[in-house]
Amino acid sequence: MSPFTRPPYHFAIAPSGFKESLSARGAAEAIAEGVRRASPEATLDLIPLVDGGEGTAEALAAATGGKLIRRTATGPVSAPVRTHFALLGHTVPAVPTAVVEMAAVAGLSLVPAERRDPGATTTYGVGELIRAALDSGARRVLVGCGDSGTSDGGAGALQALGARLLDADGRELPRGGEALARLDRIDPRGLDPRLREAELLVACNPFNVLCGERGVARVFGPQKGATPAQVERLSLGLERWADTLVRDVLVRDGVGGHGAGASADQAPAPAPDLRHAPGTGASGGLGAGLAALGARLLPRFEVLLDRFGLDARLARADLVITAEGSLDGQTPRGKIPAEVARRAKAFGKPVLALAGSLGEGAEEVRASGIDAYRSILPAPVGLAEALTRGDEYLADAAEHAVRMVLLGTRLPREDAGPAAGPPAQTRAQAHA
Amino acid sequence: MSPFTRPPYHFAIAPSGFKESLSARGAAEAIAEGVRRASPEATLDLIPLVDGGEGTAEALAAATGGKLIRRTATGPVSAPVRTHFALLGHTVPAVPTAVVEMAAVAGLSLVPAERRDPGATTTYGVGELIRAALDSGARRVLVGCGDSGTSDGGAGALQALGARLLDADGRELPRGGEALARLDRIDPRGLDPRLREAELLVACNPFNVLCGERGVARVFGPQKGATPAQVERLSLGLERWADTLVRDVLVRDGVGGHGAGASADQAPAPAPDLRHAPGTGASGGLGAGLAALGARLLPRFEVLLDRFGLDARLARADLVITAEGSLDGQTPRGKIPAEVARRAKAFGKPVLALAGSLGEGAEEVRASGIDAYRSILPAPVGLAEALTRGDEYLADAAEHAVRMVLLGTRLPREDAGPAAGPPAQTRAQAHA
Repeated sequence: MSPFTRPPYHFAIAPSGFKESLSARGAAEAIAEGVRRASPEATLDLIPLVDGGEGTAEALAAATGGKLIRRTATGPVSAPVRTHFALLGHTVPAVPTAVVEMAAVAGLSLVPAERRDPGATTTYGVGELIRAALDSGARRVLVGCGDSGTSDGGAGALQALGARLLDADGRELPRGGEALARLDRIDPRGLDPRLREAELLVACNPFNVLCGERGVARVFGPQKGATPAQVERLSLGLERWADTLVRDVLVRDGVGGHGAGASADQAPAPAPDLRHAPGTGASGGLGAGLAALGARLLPRFEVLLDRFGLDARLARADLVITAEGSLDGQTPRGKIPAEVARRAKAFGKPVLALAGSLGEGAEEVRASGIDAYRSILPAPVGLAEALTRGDEYLADAAEHAVRMVLLGTRLPREDAGPAAGPPAQTRAQAHA
Repeated sequence: MSPFTRPPYHFAIAPSGFKESLSARGAAEAIAEGVRRASPEATLDLIPLVDGGEGTAEALAAATGGKLIRRTATGPVSAPVRTHFALLGHTVPAVPTAVVEMAAVAGLSLVPAERRDPGATTTYGVGELIRAALDSGARRVLVGCGDSGTSDGGAGALQALGARLLDADGRELPRGGEALARLDRIDPRGLDPRLREAELLVACNPFNVLCGERGVARVFGPQKGATPAQVERLSLGLERWADTLVRDVLVRDGVGGHGAGASADQAPAPAPDLRHAPGTGASGGLGAGLAALGARLLPRFEVLLDRFGLDARLARADLVITAEGSLDGQTPRGKIPAEVARRAKAFGKPVLALAGSLGEGAEEVRASGIDAYRSILPAPVGLAEALTRGDEYLADAAEHAVRMVLLGTRLPREDAGPAAGPPAQTRAQAHA
């Protein structure tokens, strides 16, 4: 027992995964291990979080008591891959809901390094999984975006769902974003009719748009392997894709799209601007393609984090610990630690963040509500070792961080000498 | 203004230097910069600390209002070096006191990499500086050990002070530890007579001993450049050196030594065991050589840290921050952060430590009273960059650490719900 009287604290541990090193679950467990060393009496609430990318289907299945359905489908380089989608358990309202994680069938990690050609990779498997989800009885399909290896605007997904993409000679286009520059028209007549009844939701980073200066090919093309010239060809192809979708698919059934999600008793939503609307650029433009089918593009945290009961769990915590592979100037622009901090701040909770590394602009995260942060590295090490030993470093850093926080509980609370009587300050004031 | 009511905290910043990167003063200033970012209203007490090694003379001169005296003397590879010793200002009792820092004239950093031969390096310059200090009127000479580049048992220092080291043919030995294997006898008649009147104190790491399994040649020889065979030759030479010192120097004036420090009204101290007494191995055995002249070997922290008024300054702090280049299993064995923590704990003060890197056994430091620690590294970086950017990393880490501590001031203090009234726990209890 410590010589200092302390309440048994309640910590919420709500990390993202650490790319190439740890899943969100693995990160939460490593943090918990470290926290227990520093504060064995604390109660811990592990809330591994996902942003729509890798691990989303599995995490949502686990969080709702649902299950993963295994399938073989077409991968990003058109070779078959073993993949999965989730059927959720408890949902409100109770609608049979599937989660299709695009990264699990068209993600960058499924593209071999020597085949990183975003002109050729396809979202065909995403369309196959949506079909499989409908086959399983889902009436709502949530598509998670993020970590994609494609730049085809979702063209492959529409092909798999029955649309025909034709050139000026009436020949079907091959798969991949590069062919879209030759798109003449889309024949939507073969589209799966069940899409009219089902509700299609897309969890997107709303900062991603299809076209323009910050268009998806320009922002993400290079990291997917595109050359500068290819970036320009892909950008032009995606503009052509957006305009053709509007002409041949989106307005076929009138404003509101091909049908999905447009229930009879709702006023039709205004047609989205497929070039520039928030989320149209998600996952190499998959957002735009699915929006043309009537899918609603939703900010990923709104659609995802509520399924973890996040707000209520943060509200119960004395301290919130979040984490990510890198904390930098991008973190406030839609990354999990910033979102966790923003929500925690609504309840006045202190938030600390642990990061694999601190990058340019890390100090900006404080404006998001992260009160303190640190890297997890114990000594000068190379990236390879940092990735391999991520769980060990994260556990140690969590331990040391919590020890520092607990030091603070021993500082005096008001400007009084060591012999002062009971502090007049109440806990309610401290949290005011 | 923060939404949380806080007292203006008082932080004691008591770091060691970071070898090859930052002086203790530089470390204290970097930490202070970071702490001010996290807590602009805090009052800070900068206490850069030294352990007898590099920077000791300068730090003690600064702490006492004394001055540095510049001299040219014989360096460790026998080439002349620009060096210095300190004349202290305020001392209790008021005795003219000099500080000779062995690292400033025979330190490892003065040995060029291509000449790292601990069989040849000499403490000759240490003897020259002791003479120079006596020339300046000093009646007490404090020799700081640490960071040495020698393994000559202080033979060079005795040569410079007038002793003749002779082989079986009566020829003077050359400088360096390797020659001691051929030592036949010591002629002490030329030793500077002022040594009989002056008080010679040696600030040592008491864990360092001259001979045996943990003898100085075995423990430190390899890092000074000795081969395994040379380590054995040096060890044998130092045994011979110790025995000859006892026979020819130590007992010449009876038990208690050659004279220094043996004042008439004191009972003579028992003769030290030059092979195994604590501190005899300090600075490549310099401790043993000076002990044969009657020097008192003192635990370095007792003799050094009191000159900074350390205890009183720790007693005034709400939080103590210490730091060192590496925090590892060696830290509890006589390094500054462990000593600071031990003293801070006597006053019940929370202590956090920052380290350039965390090494094997770092967790052992908690038994010394370090409540929390962390490395300063922000990202995977190489050693060279870590050394170059040490001040920046240290400032950032101090900022982040203090932010974590301040988070802790916002946690509830007792097991009560958020709507609870004033905590019954008093500050006195919290420090009980």
